[in-house]
Amino acid sequence: MDVHPKDPDYEGRVRRSFARQAFMATIGATLESVAPGEVVIGLPFDPSLTQQHGFLHAGATTSIADSACGYAALTLMPPGAAVLAVEFKINLLATAGGTRFRATGRVVRAGRTLTVCRGEVTADGPDGEKTVAVMQSTMIAVTDRGGMAD
Amino acid sequence: MDVHPKDPDYEGRVRRSFARQAFMATIGATLESVAPGEVVIGLPFDPSLTQQHGFLHAGATTSIADSACGYAALTLMPPGAAVLAVEFKINLLATAGGTRFRATGRVVRAGRTLTVCRGEVTADGPDGEKTVAVMQSTMIAVTDRGGMAD
Amino acid sequence: MDVHPKDPDYEGRVRRSFARQAFMATIGATLESVAPGEVVIGLPFDPSLTQQHGFLHAGATTSIADSACGYAALTLMPPGAAVLAVEFKINLLATAGGTRFRATGRVVRAGRTLTVCRGEVTADGPDGEKTVAVMQSTMIAVTDRGGMAD
Amino acid sequence: MDVHPKDPDYEGRVRRSFARQAFMATIGATLESVAPGEVVIGLPFDPSLTQQHGFLHAGATTSIADSACGYAALTLMPPGAAVLAVEFKINLLATAGGTRFRATGRVVRAGRTLTVCRGEVTADGPDGEKTVAVMQSTMIAVTDRGGMAD
Repeated sequence: MDVHPKDPDYEGRVRRSFARQAFMATIGATLESVAPGEVVIGLPFDPSLTQQHGFLHAGATTSIADSACGYAALTLMPPGAAVLAVEFKINLLATAGGTRFRATGRVVRAGRTLTVCRGEVTADGPDGEKTVAVMQSTMIAVTDRGGMAD
Repeated sequence: MDVHPKDPDYEGRVRRSFARQAFMATIGATLESVAPGEVVIGLPFDPSLTQQHGFLHAGATTSIADSACGYAALTLMPPGAAVLAVEFKINLLATAGGTRFRATGRVVRAGRTLTVCRGEVTADGPDGEKTVAVMQSTMIAVTDRGGMAD
Repeated sequence: MDVHPKDPDYEGRVRRSFARQAFMATIGATLESVAPGEVVIGLPFDPSLTQQHGFLHAGATTSIADSACGYAALTLMPPGAAVLAVEFKINLLATAGGTRFRATGRVVRAGRTLTVCRGEVTADGPDGEKTVAVMQSTMIAVTDRGGMAD
Repeated sequence: MDVHPKDPDYEGRVRRSFARQAFMATIGATLESVAPGEVVIGLPFDPSLTQQHGFLHAGATTSIADSACGYAALTLMPPGAAVLAVEFKINLLATAGGTRFRATGRVVRAGRTLTVCRGEVTADGPDGEKTVAVMQSTMIAVTDRGGMAD
């Protein structure tokens, strides 16, 4: 995999775009790290994010995994391209209990149009860190839509 | 597909469980309809739910699709079983712009342990209703975990 | 969905391309029907296609579903474009027993670059026809690779 | 992940089951290695396995990835359980050209009922080995169906 960013400002670009994702602020997610081809997003547990049994809702788990994968893809896209999710698939390995969650997105293959990523979500709980979900996703670089960037 | 609910109180059961999903209230989603094997969830657009280009975040789209599929599965499960998502896959067909979104979950096959569902998310926009996402998912009926139900 | 083929020879084009898919002949699959946005492929049961319990191998089920979805996508692509699978997801609903299988691929959304399809595989058995698998897939129209077409 | 096989004869069990998968012999696939939680299957290129452009058909790529994941799951299942694929998702990263293909299946989480695996398919070509596909799949351990084992 080519992990040489085409945009030297890849980190600032991801941070500015993440800051515009209102939904990440709404759920309380923060950007933990940005490296070429790999982005980590953190999310503290909050009762407002739960499903019917008190665990993190799969939709919240998925939201941070999707953003982590999308921004991992964006780190390797040329300046001017906007990233959009084409599709993703997530396996929920265990009920998402814990005090804090961490989604890591990694680029598996960066193509000119499509980028394939894998994501993993871990939970910090009483027994240490465990993996609660794994994702496989496709992102697209959009370059021809007026005004849409990053 | 067997669409005869094993639990005559399937609708009340889904409504009570949905009311316990704090995340649905957090994003503003409401239960629109509950029928055997089919559940519809509505979500008004809100700027707090957006991604970086101002469209509904794929995580929000996914959250209502996942809950709709999960509750569609629950309508056909025997009393006492709890529903959990095993995995899902979503294709995002178009940027999710609109004033209101609607996720419909339908059971494709209800097995003793696993239930397979398909979901669809539509958006109400200036040009009418359009489909913005399709999901395919697997739910599991959990019957042996102390205290976990519905 | 726009189901008006951009290529008036869409059927001949699919039939000629299918005839070049040596793997379809190897497993004994045939093209049953070609309509705009919908293609059906048939496969008689054969002991050479089985998994360890004597049912159709999931790989064979998937092969006809993938080809049906790919050719459904091709019916709506402009002349000169080649179709390639980007990704697919399949849920195996029941063990694939029967004397004959039928995969139907349908276009859900035909975009300029990407086309999203849904597929279904049915089996003819002693109790009639049953659905054994459902697929959701993404196809890409490739137009810029020397010599690659249809 | 618990990689301690519950069945001391896990390797013989996988090898005997693989030998009963007629479809693997039909396409020319062989079992390369069996370790707890990880199985590798090899497949030489053959013109009988191609799609319309002369590359390995995605169905053949998927078949070896699915069998590798299924047998990786079986290495960790208790004696008497049979393995069946519930669902899988595959991303095709590059056209599958090469002289030989290798599918590696690895267990991500082995549960009592469900096992989640990840698979990878590589191709040996003129420029060395490249990854042509990645899979994420769910397997189920079936213990209560008369006569079905491994």
